[in-house]
Amino acid sequence: MNKTDELVFLPLGGTGEIGMNLNLYGFGPENARKWIMVDLGVTFADSSTPGIDVIMPDPVFIEERREDLLGIVLTHGHEDHIGAVAHLWPQLRCDVYATPFTAELVKAKLIEAGLEDEVPLKIIQLGGRFELGPFDIELVTLTHSIPEPNALAIRTPLGLVMHTGDWKIDPDPVLGDDIDIERLTEIGNEGVRAIVCDSTNVFTPGVSGSEADVGKGLTEIIGELKGKVAVTTFASNVARLESVIRAAEACERHVVLVGRSMHRVIGAARETGYLKNIPPFVPEDEAGYLPADNVLYLCTGSQGEPRAALSRIASDSHQHVTLGKGDTVIFSSRMIPGNDVEIFALQNTLAERGVRVITEKDHFVHVSGHPCRDELARMYQLIKPEVSVPVHGEARHLLEHAELARELQVPQAVVLRNGLMLRLAPGAAEVIDEAPSGRLFLDGDVLIPEGDPAVQERRRLAFAGTVFVTLVLDGKGEVLGEPQVRLLGLPEDDGTGVSFEERALDAVDDVLDRLPLRKRKDDGAVAELVRRAVRGAIRREWGKKAAVEVVVTRV
Amino acid sequence: MNKTDELVFLPLGGTGEIGMNLNLYGFGPENARKWIMVDLGVTFADSSTPGIDVIMPDPVFIEERREDLLGIVLTHGHEDHIGAVAHLWPQLRCDVYATPFTAELVKAKLIEAGLEDEVPLKIIQLGGRFELGPFDIELVTLTHSIPEPNALAIRTPLGLVMHTGDWKIDPDPVLGDDIDIERLTEIGNEGVRAIVCDSTNVFTPGVSGSEADVGKGLTEIIGELKGKVAVTTFASNVARLESVIRAAEACERHVVLVGRSMHRVIGAARETGYLKNIPPFVPEDEAGYLPADNVLYLCTGSQGEPRAALSRIASDSHQHVTLGKGDTVIFSSRMIPGNDVEIFALQNTLAERGVRVITEKDHFVHVSGHPCRDELARMYQLIKPEVSVPVHGEARHLLEHAELARELQVPQAVVLRNGLMLRLAPGAAEVIDEAPSGRLFLDGDVLIPEGDPAVQERRRLAFAGTVFVTLVLDGKGEVLGEPQVRLLGLPEDDGTGVSFEERALDAVDDVLDRLPLRKRKDDGAVAELVRRAVRGAIRREWGKKAAVEVVVTRV
Repeated sequence: MNKTDELVFLPLGGTGEIGMNLNLYGFGPENARKWIMVDLGVTFADSSTPGIDVIMPDPVFIEERREDLLGIVLTHGHEDHIGAVAHLWPQLRCDVYATPFTAELVKAKLIEAGLEDEVPLKIIQLGGRFELGPFDIELVTLTHSIPEPNALAIRTPLGLVMHTGDWKIDPDPVLGDDIDIERLTEIGNEGVRAIVCDSTNVFTPGVSGSEADVGKGLTEIIGELKGKVAVTTFASNVARLESVIRAAEACERHVVLVGRSMHRVIGAARETGYLKNIPPFVPEDEAGYLPADNVLYLCTGSQGEPRAALSRIASDSHQHVTLGKGDTVIFSSRMIPGNDVEIFALQNTLAERGVRVITEKDHFVHVSGHPCRDELARMYQLIKPEVSVPVHGEARHLLEHAELARELQVPQAVVLRNGLMLRLAPGAAEVIDEAPSGRLFLDGDVLIPEGDPAVQERRRLAFAGTVFVTLVLDGKGEVLGEPQVRLLGLPEDDGTGVSFEERALDAVDDVLDRLPLRKRKDDGAVAELVRRAVRGAIRREWGKKAAVEVVVTRV
Repeated sequence: MNKTDELVFLPLGGTGEIGMNLNLYGFGPENARKWIMVDLGVTFADSSTPGIDVIMPDPVFIEERREDLLGIVLTHGHEDHIGAVAHLWPQLRCDVYATPFTAELVKAKLIEAGLEDEVPLKIIQLGGRFELGPFDIELVTLTHSIPEPNALAIRTPLGLVMHTGDWKIDPDPVLGDDIDIERLTEIGNEGVRAIVCDSTNVFTPGVSGSEADVGKGLTEIIGELKGKVAVTTFASNVARLESVIRAAEACERHVVLVGRSMHRVIGAARETGYLKNIPPFVPEDEAGYLPADNVLYLCTGSQGEPRAALSRIASDSHQHVTLGKGDTVIFSSRMIPGNDVEIFALQNTLAERGVRVITEKDHFVHVSGHPCRDELARMYQLIKPEVSVPVHGEARHLLEHAELARELQVPQAVVLRNGLMLRLAPGAAEVIDEAPSGRLFLDGDVLIPEGDPAVQERRRLAFAGTVFVTLVLDGKGEVLGEPQVRLLGLPEDDGTGVSFEERALDAVDDVLDRLPLRKRKDDGAVAELVRRAVRGAIRREWGKKAAVEVVVTRV
């Protein structure tokens, strides 16, 4: 170890938002630091960025140092932890480490991107331990809403960092191992410099509850139901799928999988040893022959996604599955902020068909996968870190989590935002630098920076449409042919019967009438006069400013 | 009374959604029916209709019968009950009836629209009774989250209809009269043919709680706080404003109003006799001289509206008001579905500034203005209607409400959707007709029908932008000048360094190279070939289909 060695933590995603995790750990002197990356996820866009579905962290800081990037370690298989690998790996080109189930999910994405032969995907067993340069990385099994959630105990010459990933303490997780309390205790006793910890549920008192209890809740309510039953949940929550399958079995219902990702995840789960002893599924197209009381559809679409199975069933446009009066849909899921309008619309469509809708509001059919306050307290009690670094949360979650850590007697708690580089050791934890950070938007197949004018321009188009004007002038400035206008996204007329097209053409004529030939030398100047006149004429009647583009061609 | 007389109910808004109320009651034989309208409100658009803020019911059915429309009766002053009056009255041109406070709010809107001298706005006192043709209308005072919420007891020769408007049973409403239980009992004993009733909170068990208790909760929490305190709530909730003002008084804080609608509503409230005995407000620009512990800002912006007071304060762009470390914001409000992302973003911005955020989740600082299940049960017990018609709810609320009414022994409960005409008497309630119904969008200053292609087109522009191509041809088909392209809403290039502009121009050249002069006779055909080529060239690299417009000018 060198006197100038430092251990640093640098989040490029996941602080200030829930989702899009990208964490960097660096070790060494400033000019020769080695790095590992923990997770590389995406987040999903909302309507403020029209035309964009997927957002990911801008990795430029580490891209410029990719020779010193020793590997990417994935804690678990959720999109906000693995979703950017296939998009950003070509810029990073290092080894990727994951446990078997997570690796299976990543592999499917790499195949889709045509990268399966390029990316060195290294499989680490649960509880495994491996070295990457100065980092000695041990996987510690936790519980979460997906199989194989791992915390990382990252040992360095300057101390141990506990990176929790996403977790909860589930006393009976149904699938996979229990949380490894013994190992956590040992690590705590070994001495932990810092914990980098999940903040999602810091505002929720108590504990998140057990998956086994969800199983009981589901069995109870399904046992009371007549008619067809559909249950919707995230496909990646394999323990929940198992809970549903067991409940169906107890209630003498055959399970029918509906939705592409249900099949994909269950394939990956079986490939890696999960869901072994369950009754066979009934194919979609054969389920129609079963009595309604003996069917349970396990569907994608719990967030109201318009193309997912449940939305198609609700709108009666699914090829094989229909639901109607006397049937029931159970939302075994939570409502993710931003999805409420879509979810309510879906529930209304179902209600209109006479389908009963059951959610976590009426029955015990869901538990969260993240730690509530008592679970966080337990983790701090076990790990006894010197420094708490809340991640995986919006600003308000991180601040509340830091407050809680201080209440729990953690000597130091530091709230970061993406791009702030925190020295964890030696000395007091301290922000020592700011790295470039930001977000990349996947626009169609092209990655664009968050500030790209394309998105801003589309937002303007969405508000007030656009008008194209063409004008052909000869060398003297005489108009040749007819000026033409095209309107996109405007109402036909202003309510008085005069069309906006007519108003625009009149405005062009007015400008030309007032503009003597000698003032028509400069195409740009003519275009600008026409643009203003057209925009003004439309604004006066419409009250909005359309984007007006004028093209002058000189022949 | 005539043998062919019928009493009918026809909602054109408010069934299938919460908001945009428009209810019609008709009496008489089919060919000579007289109508009254109850409420004429708007709803606020979400991101699925870009560029649209305000939506209202399409009144075409009653517009065509406006000679038989005897009047518009407004139950109370919320936007979803009065917001469309200024927009749609010109098509209806009848008398408008409201109690003093509601009339004051409507008047302000009419002045803004320049209609104050045209619209006959008739003021009815609380508890008043008046006749419109065959309709004998009595106002019954209820409680709600705005002053002067009235139910209407509408008596006709074929029976009495109780139209509840929005209501709750508040045992101690702070401002205004208690709910008139005695009168409701009398009306119930008189015999009620049908109730048309608020469904908003039908999924919430128990009761909604009392405004007086919110006052106590606010006083308690504000009493514990140091630093500046800001409370945000809907300005129209005058009782809440009074609760906040009293709490401030008890905690030795001066109240500062922030936000235009705070001033507007408090003006209307004072004009009509409310908020008389309260301490004077401190103007915004003088509040800075007060000690932090003696200030309470009462702000608009509880839904995260970007231009409202609280958002401007949070982003530190308010002229007079600043909040920072040690200060607190209390959200004395609920989160309206669809607003969660904006509200959380606002709370994060505040948290980042060190401001503590308190919501109804942590403290008792809000109650709903709509009846929960026990209150609905009480209303049915008092009114004892023969028919229940749930309104003011999405499909799932209406269905649940009808179910509840049946459980409460109401002989008939009918779920409608906008446009279904229900005969209430004589005979069993029955849907007898369907009227044209739909929504109008306020697009800038122009009202357009919901299906207008403008909005659909803007949605497409928002997704994939647009490309404009111009081409000038002479009589033989030779290209004159240079073809030009303009791209709006596209990324600069495809990531390989080749711009989309270049790709578009290349595509134009390719088409022209392959197209002999003899095939350039028809402008439309040339344009279509160019359009396809450009669209294809962009789609291949971008993965999205931009709207491509090609203008060919022949000179």
